[in-house]
Amino acid sequence: MTRKNRQWVLRRRPEGEIRDGDLELVETPIPTLPDGHVLVRTIYLSLDPTNRIWMSDMDQYMPPVEIGAVMRGGTLGVVEESRDPNVPVGSVVLPFTGWQDYSVVPGAMVRPVPRVPGFPLTAFMSAAGATGLTAYFGMLDIGQPKAGETVAVSAAAGAVGSIAGQIAKMQGARVVGLAGGPDKCRWLTGELGFDAAIDYRSEDVPAALDRHCPKGIDVNFENVGGAIMDAVLARMNDFSRMPLCGLISTYNEAGPRKGPENFQQILMKRILVKGFIVIDYMPRFAEASMELVRWVMEGKLKYKVHVEQGLDNAVASVGKLFTGAHDGKLLVQVSPEP
Amino acid sequence: MTRKNRQWVLRRRPEGEIRDGDLELVETPIPTLPDGHVLVRTIYLSLDPTNRIWMSDMDQYMPPVEIGAVMRGGTLGVVEESRDPNVPVGSVVLPFTGWQDYSVVPGAMVRPVPRVPGFPLTAFMSAAGATGLTAYFGMLDIGQPKAGETVAVSAAAGAVGSIAGQIAKMQGARVVGLAGGPDKCRWLTGELGFDAAIDYRSEDVPAALDRHCPKGIDVNFENVGGAIMDAVLARMNDFSRMPLCGLISTYNEAGPRKGPENFQQILMKRILVKGFIVIDYMPRFAEASMELVRWVMEGKLKYKVHVEQGLDNAVASVGKLFTGAHDGKLLVQVSPEP
Repeated sequence: MTRKNRQWVLRRRPEGEIRDGDLELVETPIPTLPDGHVLVRTIYLSLDPTNRIWMSDMDQYMPPVEIGAVMRGGTLGVVEESRDPNVPVGSVVLPFTGWQDYSVVPGAMVRPVPRVPGFPLTAFMSAAGATGLTAYFGMLDIGQPKAGETVAVSAAAGAVGSIAGQIAKMQGARVVGLAGGPDKCRWLTGELGFDAAIDYRSEDVPAALDRHCPKGIDVNFENVGGAIMDAVLARMNDFSRMPLCGLISTYNEAGPRKGPENFQQILMKRILVKGFIVIDYMPRFAEASMELVRWVMEGKLKYKVHVEQGLDNAVASVGKLFTGAHDGKLLVQVSPEP
Repeated sequence: MTRKNRQWVLRRRPEGEIRDGDLELVETPIPTLPDGHVLVRTIYLSLDPTNRIWMSDMDQYMPPVEIGAVMRGGTLGVVEESRDPNVPVGSVVLPFTGWQDYSVVPGAMVRPVPRVPGFPLTAFMSAAGATGLTAYFGMLDIGQPKAGETVAVSAAAGAVGSIAGQIAKMQGARVVGLAGGPDKCRWLTGELGFDAAIDYRSEDVPAALDRHCPKGIDVNFENVGGAIMDAVLARMNDFSRMPLCGLISTYNEAGPRKGPENFQQILMKRILVKGFIVIDYMPRFAEASMELVRWVMEGKLKYKVHVEQGLDNAVASVGKLFTGAHDGKLLVQVSPEP
């Protein structure tokens, strides 16, 4: 076989938005398969806000991607060659291998997913994958919404926010989403069952929060930071909870990211703020994944994917996360589904 | 009886530091005792940072003191007249009656304290009172330090901080206190058993934290806010905890108080930040008070009180909390112990 691998390599740490030249697409040979390893062809590559963090050298929850290394990323792929008897050729797996056509990984490190008729593979990259797990643990483990409580979700039409809001609805909470643009807002209230949606681009957010959250806010599922977080925090109730999932409004900034303008609210209202990363919950992935798959199959959990075509489009596509130009969980299709 | 009552009445909301004229000492008659009520002569008045919050109209955890009302405050007093058979004359009680010589309160609302030979009444206003309870619940319920972990305490020579640090030591943690001035630092390490103390007035706080916390910080018992909080937060470990007890550096400010410069640390390190007020734990006061009293009697919990004399000195004294000119739990002795 003379197949070549293409890999996106980090050449320099972006300043502000990711620009041409920060990453470079290079061709390399596919290494020989060692014993116990499998060769995975990438089908889908997940693009996530945290990719921008990994490109930076800020203090973060994993080591940053090294200059010269293949860009890290979650992927779904199919095993094309195997030297691990437990992972046969043809298995669909979820390795964490990065922005490349092929990867060689230990068989023990890949998680095969079941192929269920009518259940699309992209669900494992969204509602039933790491995205869904992030929403699941942040909302249920930290947010803990109760029936009748009010839940605010920022970036609510985003991959994680849209799932987080639907999970809060299942608990009987009133759910108010903040999203950018009328189409996204209509999707939240019309299809996902959110009680209200606020278009932060055209509405006065504080006034809209007052209108839609007359009893204050008990859970703030925070994805964004900045002025929207300030507006929500100002309306949080005594003993409310704030799962801190992301601060995407700050990821393109250099230097320290300042906290909320009204930090003393956390003291006065006795708010719980808890940062979390989905990998913290790895021991509970299996249990939660089963529940997410079931909810998707039962139609209780709806999701959208936005699929860009071609590995060469990865860098151009990731910027959409920061402008909201995408619509649903952002994926790059690198090769056809089997 | 023709006794008069003196009361400190809030005349206007302070701007910045409390100034002459913000409160006024007035004389009023003592009202007739209704059935079921007791007349309490104030012996000690507790002065606390939160007094400054109550004087302001910021969004807070209790209604602010109204203009024209007696200034709110924790007190220890003795029952001089009683129309409640359950509270005999001579009982020493802990009402929450404010800055005045006398108060008339329902007998059911006062908590009698035991008089134990050799156990000073001032302990009930410090280590074994609300101060001790604040440290107890913040450290044990939220901070949860484990043996071998590193705990930072700001305002560590203060009433709450000094107790919080000693409770962390009892859990086997390494405890580093931040305090203002060499005498306070010596007290922390020499008498209270802190592992290290940092004089934030003369030392480079970030460098000192690096030196004294080589394994990072697992619990930050936060009393202060501002630059010291930023420096501690920057050194907090994955899954660390931050009981948010106070933000005294900001209480004289008007408008919103900005959060930490490096708020994203809370996400990246998956830190738990939890605001709390001691009254949140009222159902557990009895159990915790018994433990605190026992620790004081066994000499495991040391404390200092700083007693100013005379109700007329209350306003002049409360300002010491914001400059650190006091040394120990700040009390005003209003009348002699029985």
